[in-house]
Amino acid sequence: MAPAIAMGLPTQFTTTRALTRELVAPLSDADATVQSMADASPAKWHLAHTTWFFETFLLRDHLPGYRLFREDWPFLFNSYYEAEGQRIARNSRGVLSRPALAEVLDWRAHVDAAMEPLLGDPAMAPLIRLGIAHEQQHQELLLTDIKHAFFSNPAGPAVWPASDEAAEAPGARGWWNHAGGVVEIGDAGAEFSFDNEGPAHRVLLEPFALADRLVTNGEWSQFIADGGYRTPALWLADGWDWVQQHGISAPLYWHGDEQFTHAGWQSRDPERPVTHLSFWEADAFAAWAGHRLPTEFEWEAIAADHAADGGNQLDAADAPLPQGGDSLFGDCWQFTRSAYLPYPRFRPAGGAVGEYNGKFMAGQWVLKGASCATPRGHSRATYRNFFHPHQRWQFTGVRLARDL
Amino acid sequence: MAPAIAMGLPTQFTTTRALTRELVAPLSDADATVQSMADASPAKWHLAHTTWFFETFLLRDHLPGYRLFREDWPFLFNSYYEAEGQRIARNSRGVLSRPALAEVLDWRAHVDAAMEPLLGDPAMAPLIRLGIAHEQQHQELLLTDIKHAFFSNPAGPAVWPASDEAAEAPGARGWWNHAGGVVEIGDAGAEFSFDNEGPAHRVLLEPFALADRLVTNGEWSQFIADGGYRTPALWLADGWDWVQQHGISAPLYWHGDEQFTHAGWQSRDPERPVTHLSFWEADAFAAWAGHRLPTEFEWEAIAADHAADGGNQLDAADAPLPQGGDSLFGDCWQFTRSAYLPYPRFRPAGGAVGEYNGKFMAGQWVLKGASCATPRGHSRATYRNFFHPHQRWQFTGVRLARDL
Amino acid sequence: MAPAIAMGLPTQFTTTRALTRELVAPLSDADATVQSMADASPAKWHLAHTTWFFETFLLRDHLPGYRLFREDWPFLFNSYYEAEGQRIARNSRGVLSRPALAEVLDWRAHVDAAMEPLLGDPAMAPLIRLGIAHEQQHQELLLTDIKHAFFSNPAGPAVWPASDEAAEAPGARGWWNHAGGVVEIGDAGAEFSFDNEGPAHRVLLEPFALADRLVTNGEWSQFIADGGYRTPALWLADGWDWVQQHGISAPLYWHGDEQFTHAGWQSRDPERPVTHLSFWEADAFAAWAGHRLPTEFEWEAIAADHAADGGNQLDAADAPLPQGGDSLFGDCWQFTRSAYLPYPRFRPAGGAVGEYNGKFMAGQWVLKGASCATPRGHSRATYRNFFHPHQRWQFTGVRLARDL
Amino acid sequence: MAPAIAMGLPTQFTTTRALTRELVAPLSDADATVQSMADASPAKWHLAHTTWFFETFLLRDHLPGYRLFREDWPFLFNSYYEAEGQRIARNSRGVLSRPALAEVLDWRAHVDAAMEPLLGDPAMAPLIRLGIAHEQQHQELLLTDIKHAFFSNPAGPAVWPASDEAAEAPGARGWWNHAGGVVEIGDAGAEFSFDNEGPAHRVLLEPFALADRLVTNGEWSQFIADGGYRTPALWLADGWDWVQQHGISAPLYWHGDEQFTHAGWQSRDPERPVTHLSFWEADAFAAWAGHRLPTEFEWEAIAADHAADGGNQLDAADAPLPQGGDSLFGDCWQFTRSAYLPYPRFRPAGGAVGEYNGKFMAGQWVLKGASCATPRGHSRATYRNFFHPHQRWQFTGVRLARDL
Repeated sequence: MAPAIAMGLPTQFTTTRALTRELVAPLSDADATVQSMADASPAKWHLAHTTWFFETFLLRDHLPGYRLFREDWPFLFNSYYEAEGQRIARNSRGVLSRPALAEVLDWRAHVDAAMEPLLGDPAMAPLIRLGIAHEQQHQELLLTDIKHAFFSNPAGPAVWPASDEAAEAPGARGWWNHAGGVVEIGDAGAEFSFDNEGPAHRVLLEPFALADRLVTNGEWSQFIADGGYRTPALWLADGWDWVQQHGISAPLYWHGDEQFTHAGWQSRDPERPVTHLSFWEADAFAAWAGHRLPTEFEWEAIAADHAADGGNQLDAADAPLPQGGDSLFGDCWQFTRSAYLPYPRFRPAGGAVGEYNGKFMAGQWVLKGASCATPRGHSRATYRNFFHPHQRWQFTGVRLARDL
Repeated sequence: MAPAIAMGLPTQFTTTRALTRELVAPLSDADATVQSMADASPAKWHLAHTTWFFETFLLRDHLPGYRLFREDWPFLFNSYYEAEGQRIARNSRGVLSRPALAEVLDWRAHVDAAMEPLLGDPAMAPLIRLGIAHEQQHQELLLTDIKHAFFSNPAGPAVWPASDEAAEAPGARGWWNHAGGVVEIGDAGAEFSFDNEGPAHRVLLEPFALADRLVTNGEWSQFIADGGYRTPALWLADGWDWVQQHGISAPLYWHGDEQFTHAGWQSRDPERPVTHLSFWEADAFAAWAGHRLPTEFEWEAIAADHAADGGNQLDAADAPLPQGGDSLFGDCWQFTRSAYLPYPRFRPAGGAVGEYNGKFMAGQWVLKGASCATPRGHSRATYRNFFHPHQRWQFTGVRLARDL
Repeated sequence: MAPAIAMGLPTQFTTTRALTRELVAPLSDADATVQSMADASPAKWHLAHTTWFFETFLLRDHLPGYRLFREDWPFLFNSYYEAEGQRIARNSRGVLSRPALAEVLDWRAHVDAAMEPLLGDPAMAPLIRLGIAHEQQHQELLLTDIKHAFFSNPAGPAVWPASDEAAEAPGARGWWNHAGGVVEIGDAGAEFSFDNEGPAHRVLLEPFALADRLVTNGEWSQFIADGGYRTPALWLADGWDWVQQHGISAPLYWHGDEQFTHAGWQSRDPERPVTHLSFWEADAFAAWAGHRLPTEFEWEAIAADHAADGGNQLDAADAPLPQGGDSLFGDCWQFTRSAYLPYPRFRPAGGAVGEYNGKFMAGQWVLKGASCATPRGHSRATYRNFFHPHQRWQFTGVRLARDL
Repeated sequence: MAPAIAMGLPTQFTTTRALTRELVAPLSDADATVQSMADASPAKWHLAHTTWFFETFLLRDHLPGYRLFREDWPFLFNSYYEAEGQRIARNSRGVLSRPALAEVLDWRAHVDAAMEPLLGDPAMAPLIRLGIAHEQQHQELLLTDIKHAFFSNPAGPAVWPASDEAAEAPGARGWWNHAGGVVEIGDAGAEFSFDNEGPAHRVLLEPFALADRLVTNGEWSQFIADGGYRTPALWLADGWDWVQQHGISAPLYWHGDEQFTHAGWQSRDPERPVTHLSFWEADAFAAWAGHRLPTEFEWEAIAADHAADGGNQLDAADAPLPQGGDSLFGDCWQFTRSAYLPYPRFRPAGGAVGEYNGKFMAGQWVLKGASCATPRGHSRATYRNFFHPHQRWQFTGVRLARDL
């Protein structure tokens, strides 16, 4: 379980690109074309978009004489970079039956080969590291998007067979205490981090405690049995509207005693961490439990003593599932009660790459940790993931906090 | 150009089923999975739904001992038959990457083989004829739906190469005159007809004339140049709202001097019939031209003297396109100024098959004739096609009429 | 009960304008300002719009030297005449707290006085008759719109006290038979008719029968008790979608054993005609009853023998309510199975007045007769009312028909 | 200009209730009934809702023997208190033509008189103070809501005549510097504060500077001239979507060189503070200016040295308008870059009153200060106003900040 971060950069590049290919190995061209909702993208699109990133910001911009593999594909596979021009509407990516999966894989091979001369160039290292981290993010999205696509198919197909690994039984919930005071937050000089993790700065905390394990399926069933989804006093106002409007009564992917997984419909283990929650649900559960969600700063303060490359994260191409245990990282992204905002003195970088994170700093919530679908080596204590409060298709979970 | 109707029923069945397979031969599994809008269905779905029809209403209901190929597929491939139970939401058919195209084709082969003992059974003939006519309708839809899917792909792929057949230059427009009086309308005992074509009855007409050719691309360009899309007085009120709301300024599939076809983007020939129009546009054009659309009864009265199996219709698997000429049938479905309503004494048949047409008799308009994508032998003078007034993805065109 | 049509034109003008004022007498300025949905308009707007009609098409266009009462009011009170320029969005009429009701009534008085010199001018008679008929239509709309506004107010206020007039008990349903054949339809030279009633022409009918009374509340309760609103086979497809989407389970204004009236919530009399139905409901009921709706031509053929100014229609300003009885006219507008289409050789008139009816001839259904809210003298056998199939806020009812 | 806070509680009650009545004095019953959008409420509703608050939480709960003025009015005039039962849909308040304005004013008088015995009761003081603060909030909303209603009326009426007071010319922009460090934030024991202002706690700040005046109309015109509304790089991603979707190109209420005010359309003074901005616009402007918005903590740290009852705030019933000057409070609410979140150890109070603020702590932004429409005495340095990022109908403005 050697973390990717210890490898040399060319090896990291090769390993990351290879894992993406392995993730799509079970998928047909048709599977890789489906888009089941606007938030999700086709697997083919992820394969192409990550390749577009390297072709555009590395090969086009920095390899003399490089010619684009196909002139018209940037329009298809740009995501949201306004500075990079027009692009296909986000919710129309599901019409891209052409190029075929095989053509996209050819493009990947072409770009990988063309990258060779740049991989050892120190001047290129920052952009290559960004490209690798970017591709790791899309590996996780590819997994959660294809899960949603297969879930949307009434035939309920599976990407991989189910693993028969038994889950670890969670102990009673314990707490990690923190005495409060001034803590250092944000990028502390790691080899790579995203712009939104900095600048490093100090934050003053009150004393608090953070739960030493995630909330489980069994605990969530108690919340439901106790009328959690029918009790407005537990919910934020917009969350209650969301529950009413969409008739929400359980986490996404729950049906009876089963849940949908990359291995199709499977029985649900009450001992394992509950996942695929919205922020609204996480917050309501915390209120019901008499506790609260942590802030991102509290979570990060506790993380100083925990290894980011431990826990249940993605190592290879098989069906990811939260397993439980007492690792702070892994299993599920953990909601915080922190809105996703810029740190003091944050300034977006210039150019198209500067659109990476800053422009999304409104209306979303910070999640910390890593999930069972996060490529090991991708996350850090300072990592700030973020989603809109109603989104549930990621492996999201709840770790409680309380005041001391 | 022997019409299908002259064949024996087993041959008709075999020929029709074979043509459907030929139509999808150029499509990948991914192509056959794409759904580009709620009105359109994936090619794979058409393949499966037409097979479901034979499996359900023939094999399941009438072949002793027949067992369903797959128990869970009826849910996926029922279209709108309430009596046949739950079904997947119409606008969610694009998630069906599984079953794969090859599996669906296997199902087709299985059902075709299983049908063997029923093909010669006279008691089965009415249902088999209905199944063949139903499949012919879906052949046309398959063609128009895949055209829309490929159009929606910014890469603009082609199903077939372009034909280099030259279009026939249209002459000056002439008129077929009719003296009015009582005419016989509706099903007159053809071997097969849909329920909505009957009962036969009499209608009293005023004297009128019907144009002997369709409106052309060139004439439509004049309408545009004359401000047709910006002149509210030419439009029905709901049509004008539609123009405003969607920013309509040309037929669907027009862009500059090109139009999108099954052979991709092609230059537009001003001599050929204009197609892919809404009822709103057809009606506004007729007003601009100082004429009007015919009623379905007028059209049918003229058709008494015309062969339904002539003109430019679908004979084989290649790129359909309106060609022009003076055939009443073929090239484009022709809008009428008749709302789609039941004929006097019309009663829907009992059972699921009775849901075929009657329940759609509100809010739609009758179109007469046949198009370049209609399988030859499918249409009749009494045939009543129908669409909502804003729909444009069918091969729809305009034939003018005027009072005498 | 002398019908308005027997009066001289100046008297008709004065009488009609006076009735409108009487209808709003119980309303406060606030009542007259409320718009409860996009289909309805504020009472104040009706008062002003009918005045705008006379000021624009009579005084402005034909009275030398006339100056507009207020330059900016045409923008506020034009309805849908594109040729008359910009106008306030239809669903924003509820913001017009200014001008105040009193100001609008002053405008009415001003225009009425200014009209004096034109009332006796034979050249003006056609436009004046049109203005009177237009105002009568708005009298009915004013009544149905204020009913909807008061219904939307949870306090459930009343416009007028309830009348204690007992309803006539309906007899068993009888049928008026018609032998079919060619009948004359449409405007036959009445003193006044709308453009959509002509030209007169002949239609060929099959033998049929028309019920001699309307369907009652009690019969509708049986339809509900028999699961009418839960049986898809009874409904047109778009009607069933409407039922599902809006959770429809009873006529508009029904609640428990009560119905909302101009006298507030009142108990519902099973003997009286059921009203406030959509076309979808009317059609489903007819299917349930084993009959059908009449065509507009059948209805009109029967009407040749009935007086249009009989029955329960609006004579004075008090709470209108269907009463029942065997009058063909009055009580409720009666749905037909005829789409609202132009008659043969119909051509809209030129100018803004030509926008009156023709441009709405798509997507609506013809209703015949008159209602308890129709000013007596307004309707005729040839009169064609029309609404969209989901609309229910008019006094709409069902008269069954059947084939012979 | 003695602040309300120095008065005894009975006087505060009387003064506040009287000011509300004065604010509606120029309004007709119809004016007071109009609701021009879902965010706004009719003036009549504000009058009634604030009265409902006192009748419910004081008279009903604490005055033995008190009987409700009208049993059915709580349904009409509850705002969002789930614990207080069902209520009319927020966007349907515009149908309440009944009760009439005069009836609502009678209710106010009745409740004011009934409150007499409770005004001097120390046990009631916290609830009465809450009721007064609540009514002051609705005074500001009443002003901004009627402004929107009159703006929506194409006739553009005025509530009050324009004042001819000249605006103070703003000097060059100066900055108030702050050295950073730990500051005390939140409720420090004022006589009254809202629950969201506490608990008091410490926050660690970096050195920063806050502008000593608001951004002006003239500066905003430069932003527009420089293409501010067409430059995606200046905008948060959701803000850019909002600009595109709604075609935003200027602050709300701007048209040519004019702006809409309580005195109708008036010419716009470039020297006065710009107002009626969304958070999206405020943030984009700050980016364009090369600065940023302050955090709520920075703003509050500066406010320690400023009097909250100074500046241009609401003292009497006339047309409010930002005037400019160097007061930290008044003129416009000032956007911060702080999401509206709970302070450490915040817990909502029990019961319906506990729904006051906590449940809205998601998706909104904190604004600090006070506006020209805020009743003087209502605001404090710790006060936290909050709105959704697209809302513009409040008197919102921009005060820039920068890092030191």
